[in-house]
Amino acid sequence: MNIDIQLVPTAPNPNLLFDRAVVVIDILRATSVIIQAMSQGVSEIIPVTTVEDAFKMAKAFPPGFVLLGGESESKNIPGFDLGNSPREYVAERVKGKKLILTTTNGTKAFHRVSSGKEILAGSFFNIGALAQRCLESNRDLLIFPSGDEGNFSLEDTICGGMLIEWITKKGEKSISLTDASECARILYKKFVDNLIGAFYLSRHGKELISRGYEEDLAYCARIDAIPLVPIFRDGVIRIPLTPSASP
Amino acid sequence: MNIDIQLVPTAPNPNLLFDRAVVVIDILRATSVIIQAMSQGVSEIIPVTTVEDAFKMAKAFPPGFVLLGGESESKNIPGFDLGNSPREYVAERVKGKKLILTTTNGTKAFHRVSSGKEILAGSFFNIGALAQRCLESNRDLLIFPSGDEGNFSLEDTICGGMLIEWITKKGEKSISLTDASECARILYKKFVDNLIGAFYLSRHGKELISRGYEEDLAYCARIDAIPLVPIFRDGVIRIPLTPSASP
Repeated sequence: MNIDIQLVPTAPNPNLLFDRAVVVIDILRATSVIIQAMSQGVSEIIPVTTVEDAFKMAKAFPPGFVLLGGESESKNIPGFDLGNSPREYVAERVKGKKLILTTTNGTKAFHRVSSGKEILAGSFFNIGALAQRCLESNRDLLIFPSGDEGNFSLEDTICGGMLIEWITKKGEKSISLTDASECARILYKKFVDNLIGAFYLSRHGKELISRGYEEDLAYCARIDAIPLVPIFRDGVIRIPLTPSASP
Repeated sequence: MNIDIQLVPTAPNPNLLFDRAVVVIDILRATSVIIQAMSQGVSEIIPVTTVEDAFKMAKAFPPGFVLLGGESESKNIPGFDLGNSPREYVAERVKGKKLILTTTNGTKAFHRVSSGKEILAGSFFNIGALAQRCLESNRDLLIFPSGDEGNFSLEDTICGGMLIEWITKKGEKSISLTDASECARILYKKFVDNLIGAFYLSRHGKELISRGYEEDLAYCARIDAIPLVPIFRDGVIRIPLTPSASP
């Protein structure tokens, strides 16, 4: 198995994706929201790339059937039901609902890698289940940090490095790493005992603190708390019925 | 001063470059060759992007006036005078000559950032003079690792991290770093006492070893050995007559 990580979130060459698993990571905060929302009973999540598309899509469903969630420029969106803090996504508000989600980086990332053989949502929350799933699928892997407005994101890459470390430690198979994967693993090891410290160093972490979301940082650093691996297929994110439900 | 580093060598947005200094780094081995060749008395270096262009350009000069140097797919090029090992570039062979250089990553990188306000060649060889020059120019800085066939390069990024560390330690000015710059600095600190170890970990380092260039690795890791900062302007790399010769 080869593991690569794309350090800058431009669209990868689709020809490189057709037989690979892709893990999309947006720690602060889209994939943390996605995994949290799934754990609280959301039926499915539709990631869309603009606020306008989110409103348009919501109109296609009966009232009360869907929730609108996400952010624009790190701010809550007027007319939306929920923001982009995973702490908002509790069963009382979301259970049984369909979620239409739009965010600056993460929801776009799923569409950028949509040519992947299987596309998984990852964060610190599901790192154990994710590593297990990657080992079971036994495909070459591209980790895709969603980045920070087109730029490298420290916290997303550290999570990618943690996934690499967990896979290589769990796996007995021969695993090859690219220079970028080695970089991510080194970053992870630097911050393994202080993930919050990385959030305080990162541009996006600092921005969230300045906007009053400091509590989200500690929340998003919860490791291996949710044993679910959401899968993006045909435009929708769902939890497969069994771990091997993917073709 | 803001310092950014572009971890993947796609062409940057030219609009971001017009008032910035850009440092091109290709440790293994183009910028190491450039700085070494300049220290041995090469009059100027023309970086070209293809072997064909190199031969075509050489025909424009009288015989004996220019040297052809570089590599293609890490191999010496038939008909060229010199390869891409800095150890070949000694005064006896190169003094007073003009060098036409083509390589897989480094010579292309200069052209990708040609919209920069000033474009400097960097490697471990000239790290001290380079840091000094960046502080004197006092412009925002983009460090541009030439990468490994379009991908992230561990050794180039570590050298970028060393430049960041030397600038921030030398400089009394307020310096801001991006997430990518923090990443590069962390990588540098990881390998500060073992640069060769990074070469042995990197894909390109391993390739050079397999091709018989292991001695180049130790050679390219010489730190602060050459106090020259070559500048790329109007398609040509030269040493300016004075440190403040740039407009």
